[in-house]
Amino acid sequence: MRRLIGVDIGGTRTRVGAFSAGELLARREFPTQGMEQANQAIRNLLSQVGWERPEAIGVGAPSPMDMRAGIILGCPNLPHWRNVKVVEELREAFGCPVYLANDATCAAIGELEFGHRARDFVYITWSTGIGGGIVAGGRVVWGATGQAGEIGHMVIRPDGPLCRCGKRGCLEAVASGTGIARAAEERLGERLPAKEVVARARAGDPGARGIAEEACRAFGQGLAIVWELLEPELVILGGGLTQAWDYLGPMVMEALGRMARGKPRVVLTKLGDDVGLYGAAALPDHFPKEWASR
Amino acid sequence: MRRLIGVDIGGTRTRVGAFSAGELLARREFPTQGMEQANQAIRNLLSQVGWERPEAIGVGAPSPMDMRAGIILGCPNLPHWRNVKVVEELREAFGCPVYLANDATCAAIGELEFGHRARDFVYITWSTGIGGGIVAGGRVVWGATGQAGEIGHMVIRPDGPLCRCGKRGCLEAVASGTGIARAAEERLGERLPAKEVVARARAGDPGARGIAEEACRAFGQGLAIVWELLEPELVILGGGLTQAWDYLGPMVMEALGRMARGKPRVVLTKLGDDVGLYGAAALPDHFPKEWASR
Repeated sequence: MRRLIGVDIGGTRTRVGAFSAGELLARREFPTQGMEQANQAIRNLLSQVGWERPEAIGVGAPSPMDMRAGIILGCPNLPHWRNVKVVEELREAFGCPVYLANDATCAAIGELEFGHRARDFVYITWSTGIGGGIVAGGRVVWGATGQAGEIGHMVIRPDGPLCRCGKRGCLEAVASGTGIARAAEERLGERLPAKEVVARARAGDPGARGIAEEACRAFGQGLAIVWELLEPELVILGGGLTQAWDYLGPMVMEALGRMARGKPRVVLTKLGDDVGLYGAAALPDHFPKEWASR
Repeated sequence: MRRLIGVDIGGTRTRVGAFSAGELLARREFPTQGMEQANQAIRNLLSQVGWERPEAIGVGAPSPMDMRAGIILGCPNLPHWRNVKVVEELREAFGCPVYLANDATCAAIGELEFGHRARDFVYITWSTGIGGGIVAGGRVVWGATGQAGEIGHMVIRPDGPLCRCGKRGCLEAVASGTGIARAAEERLGERLPAKEVVARARAGDPGARGIAEEACRAFGQGLAIVWELLEPELVILGGGLTQAWDYLGPMVMEALGRMARGKPRVVLTKLGDDVGLYGAAALPDHFPKEWASR
């Protein structure tokens, strides 16, 4: 592999890394701000590894985005990145091709190149939100404009709670960290982060336990839908809620086993929070050629 | 394109066709029986078009099957095709490579080569059962063993009716012709084919109308799930229930519009009942190379 820079812009933290011959040479991580800071972090990284310029830069960021135009459209938890022409700006700053894709798709690319290296799999982030990236026959499934993999917005409860996307009963509205926190506020009358709801459930609190069980059943149903539709070799999970997999996993797997045929295989990412960074660095080799004009 | 034979084995009828340079030269159609009759139909077809042997044969059949081994496993409505080594038998009979795939996947290949020719789409049969085939970036999504596209077995109502696959609340159990007929038997107390239930609904019968609406809502939800997950350019529908699309379509589209973001495009196949036959003939050019040992 080549001298590549990966940039993973998250709601909370941004990671940049320099990769050569498939190895991560150096990385930096800092609270997410805007373009200026990302630009500076790449400069620092380049001087650290002694490259004049990278051969290409791959950027992963949360949706919504215009992937072909290379523009991050931004969302409430990404205030510094609203309508930022990230591809154009980085290309001008570093004089190399730049590619942009959804962070969950980048994570799937990270798994394809550096992780479990399956040919047919789905990567799913189970965290504040729920996102996914699909690989079929060793190739990324992009969809018509690069938005494929929106697992969190599959409607599984048509009369369910309102999702931030405006629809009702999306998987994300029911089973994500946000969904768990919303259920806790409604039913326990307390504003608690999902992590705390899960901790209380684990400690035996019946109200919290009911909420955790419901989220796990819904998440298992989402995995079952993906399993039937795509017949992957395995589903790879990452994201904050998987840190409690020892507790939540059995409940998810019970629901999945009931709602999918065959023997679904579910594993956790081995790349931890860097899965998206690895994938961003490999994005230049996977970006659809017919979309690349940069 | 080459001199190819397509064979489409359906629950009711079998179709065989001879294709050269992408044109259907001759076809035959007859009630489905077993291997012997299909073999004879191919012989007759070959002598009609004056070929000594085809370059390859593609066979589409209902699941379950072992696609890599080339064996149709058979199901209750395919009694003559239980554990038939169709690939081995036809290869020996006609001295050419033979390929086997799911009928809905073949239909998707038919659409890719002869129909709407999109690069990213899903083909869905809405009939006695519900099946699907997925094309992403101009390539078939096969899944780990060729079973991808089982849209009918996505669970959308975890507490819903029992499906013939043994699970509860599959899309097929709720929204297929079988599901509609089952609902009519339960709620109207009559054994009616789905077609008749739809006709009564159209004529204003309130009980039948409720059943049709529920099936359409569920089918629209299924399309919405596929839309969010795969971001196709369009969804292509075929199968018996689409013959009443002028009546059912608006109800399906209302549910789809409510449960999917963006502007989902749904079209009907232009290839009619021959979509699977066309696709079977093009199967040899799409079968995964790493699976082909024939």
